[in-house]
Amino acid sequence: MQLSKDKRQDFRSRLSRIEGQVRGVQRMVEEEDRYCGDILDQIHSVQQALKSVERKIIRNHLETCMTDAIRGGDEQAVQESYDEVMDVLKKRI
Amino acid sequence: MQLSKDKRQDFRSRLSRIEGQVRGVQRMVEEEDRYCGDILDQIHSVQQALKSVERKIIRNHLETCMTDAIRGGDEQAVQESYDEVMDVLKKRI
Amino acid sequence: MQLSKDKRQDFRSRLSRIEGQVRGVQRMVEEEDRYCGDILDQIHSVQQALKSVERKIIRNHLETCMTDAIRGGDEQAVQESYDEVMDVLKKRI
Amino acid sequence: MQLSKDKRQDFRSRLSRIEGQVRGVQRMVEEEDRYCGDILDQIHSVQQALKSVERKIIRNHLETCMTDAIRGGDEQAVQESYDEVMDVLKKRI
Repeated sequence: MQLSKDKRQDFRSRLSRIEGQVRGVQRMVEEEDRYCGDILDQIHSVQQALKSVERKIIRNHLETCMTDAIRGGDEQAVQESYDEVMDVLKKRI
Repeated sequence: MQLSKDKRQDFRSRLSRIEGQVRGVQRMVEEEDRYCGDILDQIHSVQQALKSVERKIIRNHLETCMTDAIRGGDEQAVQESYDEVMDVLKKRI
Repeated sequence: MQLSKDKRQDFRSRLSRIEGQVRGVQRMVEEEDRYCGDILDQIHSVQQALKSVERKIIRNHLETCMTDAIRGGDEQAVQESYDEVMDVLKKRI
Repeated sequence: MQLSKDKRQDFRSRLSRIEGQVRGVQRMVEEEDRYCGDILDQIHSVQQALKSVERKIIRNHLETCMTDAIRGGDEQAVQESYDEVMDVLKKRI
């Protein structure tokens, strides 16, 4: 993935935070008296954090691969770059 | 969370697999030549795995808390148990 | 679907509003100078309205079918009522 | 929305089919003995059909507005076109 140094660092810290959140869920599941609504809320937070990473990757793709393809002017490459974005969206929307 | 020993063990191994998947995403983000579609696919797998855990927690809630409330016969407790499930669904549906 | 008269009336007016919203989207699509972000926002409203109907149907199911099954005490019927709810959730979560 | 004649016709027939599906849900809700799982399945079909329309609008946006902005070369317009897509995705992913 084409990424500026700052962006790569941002992904790194986001993903390491997410890893910590998943370990938090693991600890919650061990506790007999933990209300399951709390665990579901924590899983929801992990999912929101992952979605935020996904959106940042998609934006980076638009800014780099898709923009390069459109500027490059090769019509087939442009169509492929649209298809790639749509494949990503098809799994999510 | 009220959980049988087997189910707790199942959650444990699912969550530890998810933690490993998140570390996999971290490694992918470090690779310059990794296609962003691959990273998005891996994140998608993490999310599907988290959803599967969520559904199992919800089913466990129906089987334990909600069923106990309905069998208990206290109408207020029953209403609260419906509300709890709906709170969980409102964030997801 | 087991529904009180009031609830049926509520579903009726929600669905007729949704039908009107879909016709609104149809009109927007005909307008050359309509910004596509507006159309997507309107479709989003339709989807939120549909999700709200879905959640009301699910709550009604918990309050009627599932509760009847649990009170009835036939263990197989109870398991089937859990399975039914989970089938519904599997398509949505 | 910038749309070819064929695409506009395609949206027209998709949306008119969706309107028919919503009327189908209305009829189902009136039937006392209709299983609520069936109604939820029908609503799910409406939602999938709406998502398909959404994805087609998003692709059309990439192919027209975003591509025009990138080819136009005005950096501010390009950034705005990325922001627009991301606003759309933020509500959905």
